[in-house]
Amino acid sequence: MPDPSATASAPTATTTAYEPTSRTVPTRAAERAAYDRETVHAILDDGYVCHLGFVRDGAPVVLPTLYARVGERLYVHGSTGSRPLRTAGRREADPGLAVCLTVTHVDGLVLARSAFHHSLNYRSVVVHGTARQVTDPAERSAALDALVDHVVPGRAADSRRANAKELAATAVLRLDLEEVSAKIRTGGPNDDPEDLELPHWSGVVPVSRTYGAPIPADDLAPSVPLPAYLAAGCSTG
Amino acid sequence: MPDPSATASAPTATTTAYEPTSRTVPTRAAERAAYDRETVHAILDDGYVCHLGFVRDGAPVVLPTLYARVGERLYVHGSTGSRPLRTAGRREADPGLAVCLTVTHVDGLVLARSAFHHSLNYRSVVVHGTARQVTDPAERSAALDALVDHVVPGRAADSRRANAKELAATAVLRLDLEEVSAKIRTGGPNDDPEDLELPHWSGVVPVSRTYGAPIPADDLAPSVPLPAYLAAGCSTG
Repeated sequence: MPDPSATASAPTATTTAYEPTSRTVPTRAAERAAYDRETVHAILDDGYVCHLGFVRDGAPVVLPTLYARVGERLYVHGSTGSRPLRTAGRREADPGLAVCLTVTHVDGLVLARSAFHHSLNYRSVVVHGTARQVTDPAERSAALDALVDHVVPGRAADSRRANAKELAATAVLRLDLEEVSAKIRTGGPNDDPEDLELPHWSGVVPVSRTYGAPIPADDLAPSVPLPAYLAAGCSTG
Repeated sequence: MPDPSATASAPTATTTAYEPTSRTVPTRAAERAAYDRETVHAILDDGYVCHLGFVRDGAPVVLPTLYARVGERLYVHGSTGSRPLRTAGRREADPGLAVCLTVTHVDGLVLARSAFHHSLNYRSVVVHGTARQVTDPAERSAALDALVDHVVPGRAADSRRANAKELAATAVLRLDLEEVSAKIRTGGPNDDPEDLELPHWSGVVPVSRTYGAPIPADDLAPSVPLPAYLAAGCSTG
């Protein structure tokens, strides 16, 4: 599989952390912010649905969509007819689409004695930048494989790859990981000292994403076995 | 509890569906779109974290945040010092903040024989509108209760309500449900007829959000029992 992060224009991770900017430094709870690549990559790799924000006619639009990470790049895809992908322009040299791509995992409900200190445990990543059309066939192909494998590792090789007609109908956008921050909350409630004797239960209810037993398609021949990458459970998400 | 949806300015649900607009009719997969209030409310009530998009310096920003629904209104809250809440203005009469608020639930991974037809089963709601500061004390109080109860029903009454200092530090924004759409995908993969005999497994892996056993805070007295609303499991989310 070609590695698009190895092409000349790909960003390279020469530092262990992303440089904070005015829009990636939070105005509050700054102690929850993180910029190191390892933390950011782990949060991105633990999910596959992001919320992609862009501006249309001066107003914000936020749509859920699949994403995948390959090195220091994120990819999203969609119909060539969809609004954000059309707006990004058809060529790599086009101005592209200013986006904010956000990934959030909820890990716990934090119940404090006071309503005010209720919170969530979570891990999120916010990426600011410009999404651009990917036109190089090898990079497009690798990105589409990554989008499938990001959801179910090993699946891309065990499916029929896109044909010419499907490739022509699919737009792939690339977003370089440059202006990036993570935000993480962990641990129990932070009640005020004067509230500790109140009679309300306090603590954390863990939250996780779980996967049920795979359900075969109605038209699947009984002779087709469940693949090992599903029998073992999904490793991402 | 005062019902803010009963105030004079609250939108009333005089129809069973939201009126589609140019930005709530999708350019593709229009058959997945829904506008009826019952469907929209059910999706909103099944979650508590939204992705709130707004425009800052011409660029999109998408942040995860808690929300709650009360009738035909959504509420979000935050520190009075946070950027979006500051931008909305301090008074109800201020222009407010143009937002797009999106809620997404992932219900399944859809594995088709072809990479192209891979998909997700999901339920999402997208709300466009203008978020405005809530300044009426009764509506603010009801909104803050709703934000707690939306995550854990019954919890607001079993916690210390916000005091004057906390209320002064908290901004509450209201977003009327007027320009709203839902999008839903259910069911198995839609493979092309010519792919049905391929040897790849196809079907759906169910995805759900699950809750673990509540973990008491380190400083919780052993005499404080687990409340019934937690012992029974969380009913939302």
